[in-house]
Amino acid sequence: MTPHTDDKTPVTLLGLGAMGTALARAWLAAGHSATVWNRTPARADALAAEGARTADSAAAAVAAGPLVVVCLLDDASVGEVLADADLAGKDVVNLTTCTPGQARTRAAWARERGARYLDGGIMAVPPMIGQPEAGGYVFYSGSCELFDRHREVLAVPAGTAYAGADPGSAALHDVALLSAMYGMFAGVTHAFALIRREDVDPAEFAGLLADWLTAMIPMVHGVAAELGVGGESEEDASSLAMQVAGTPTFLDTARQQGVSPELLTPYFELMRRCLAERTGEGAPRSMVDLLLG
Amino acid sequence: MTPHTDDKTPVTLLGLGAMGTALARAWLAAGHSATVWNRTPARADALAAEGARTADSAAAAVAAGPLVVVCLLDDASVGEVLADADLAGKDVVNLTTCTPGQARTRAAWARERGARYLDGGIMAVPPMIGQPEAGGYVFYSGSCELFDRHREVLAVPAGTAYAGADPGSAALHDVALLSAMYGMFAGVTHAFALIRREDVDPAEFAGLLADWLTAMIPMVHGVAAELGVGGESEEDASSLAMQVAGTPTFLDTARQQGVSPELLTPYFELMRRCLAERTGEGAPRSMVDLLLG
Repeated sequence: MTPHTDDKTPVTLLGLGAMGTALARAWLAAGHSATVWNRTPARADALAAEGARTADSAAAAVAAGPLVVVCLLDDASVGEVLADADLAGKDVVNLTTCTPGQARTRAAWARERGARYLDGGIMAVPPMIGQPEAGGYVFYSGSCELFDRHREVLAVPAGTAYAGADPGSAALHDVALLSAMYGMFAGVTHAFALIRREDVDPAEFAGLLADWLTAMIPMVHGVAAELGVGGESEEDASSLAMQVAGTPTFLDTARQQGVSPELLTPYFELMRRCLAERTGEGAPRSMVDLLLG
Repeated sequence: MTPHTDDKTPVTLLGLGAMGTALARAWLAAGHSATVWNRTPARADALAAEGARTADSAAAAVAAGPLVVVCLLDDASVGEVLADADLAGKDVVNLTTCTPGQARTRAAWARERGARYLDGGIMAVPPMIGQPEAGGYVFYSGSCELFDRHREVLAVPAGTAYAGADPGSAALHDVALLSAMYGMFAGVTHAFALIRREDVDPAEFAGLLADWLTAMIPMVHGVAAELGVGGESEEDASSLAMQVAGTPTFLDTARQQGVSPELLTPYFELMRRCLAERTGEGAPRSMVDLLLG
């Protein structure tokens, strides 16, 4: 065993994709000893040169220390990789992207094997790991005891946010925020397609786009106010009607620019249904509830 | 005629919806004389009490001054409302939402009638008008001469941005930025639906959502870099493959939460097609170009 600072918890890390590698680097850089394992061993070579210990099997990596961080491709991989490992007494932090349901099932699975379990949802891309100023953070949910015990270790690669004892809560928050991001990316993709064949500088347009989206983000607080207890509608029916009346301009512009409207039409259709079916409450709440069937 | 300050250009405003009314108020508040007309005359009453002159017809309103601002429901309304007006020598600023093609046709139509024509796309909601700190602004395109002559008048209700001599350019920028916003709203609607039936405080969630979207907005500059001359891909194929591999988590989470995935599926499908069909260039550029067929 390579020596390590006694007051720093050793970290075992399973899975060395771009994210797992970034996590391992952050812990090594902060003076933690790290034992790493990856299905394809070559991925561990660079980390070994930076001071990581490599394990020959996932079970051996788990046996090397009390804190086991898992960052694999998907939930099924977690079950396969840990099938032969002795989890009794271990603190398992699962950062593998999964659904809330998978997280709850995996938490029960880990408890049956004698482990404490914390599920995590990473709100960052690998280059943001170990860069506190980048603003990345990780939602954690599940064992509050585990979270409190390892709070400082967990805070090394990125900020931390405890999302509650329900192990599915971190995944729910993760998926919800990333879903909103994909919606934004869809809108951005459509917008760039509209100007693609025009004499418009993409970089200059990106600046306008970034400023406009930034200015519109506070609208989320209005949606939340409507969804909250006793929330009142800030938006009247005429506003939704105006927006629905305006959708042909968007679809016609797309057609004129040779752009498929496929990324926008579902939202326009939802606005139309909301206007046709709404029962008087605010438009954002009605649209959210229409998605719930 | 009511007296007005000689050094302030009188403004004629056709159309007193929420936006037209806000515009008229801003000019009145800045000391401009304003002549207003609306198809439903009652809308003009409040403005008359604030000092606006009301005209009995659109033609009379146009005759009252050199600068005619039009803010109607749609392009067809512009043609109808101005059918009997003498536009010779007038400076027409059309802020009615329209497509780039409609703006170009309307510009030619106005020129045939002897008017200078500027098309505008308003990047603001009515409460932002006359509130410089709110950051709202208007894209203008078309007659540069008209824009330069009335630049100060036009800057009264909101900031100004000249988007070029092509009369369709303002509408294109307007529609493109609003399209991106609708994408973001779609994502936000889906995200709130995911937590709707959970014990999650909507206001707290909105704060997380706003911060996350704000952090992701700079990605638009990466898309622009790829679309620019000699743009290099910053994103490799494995990143897109990872995202495509992750989409079942999003769809399964939606299903578990009872949320229709209709707002997200088109973007996921575009990612999938991009991964299957791409020819080596960066993913954002490929996705934009896939929308162009």
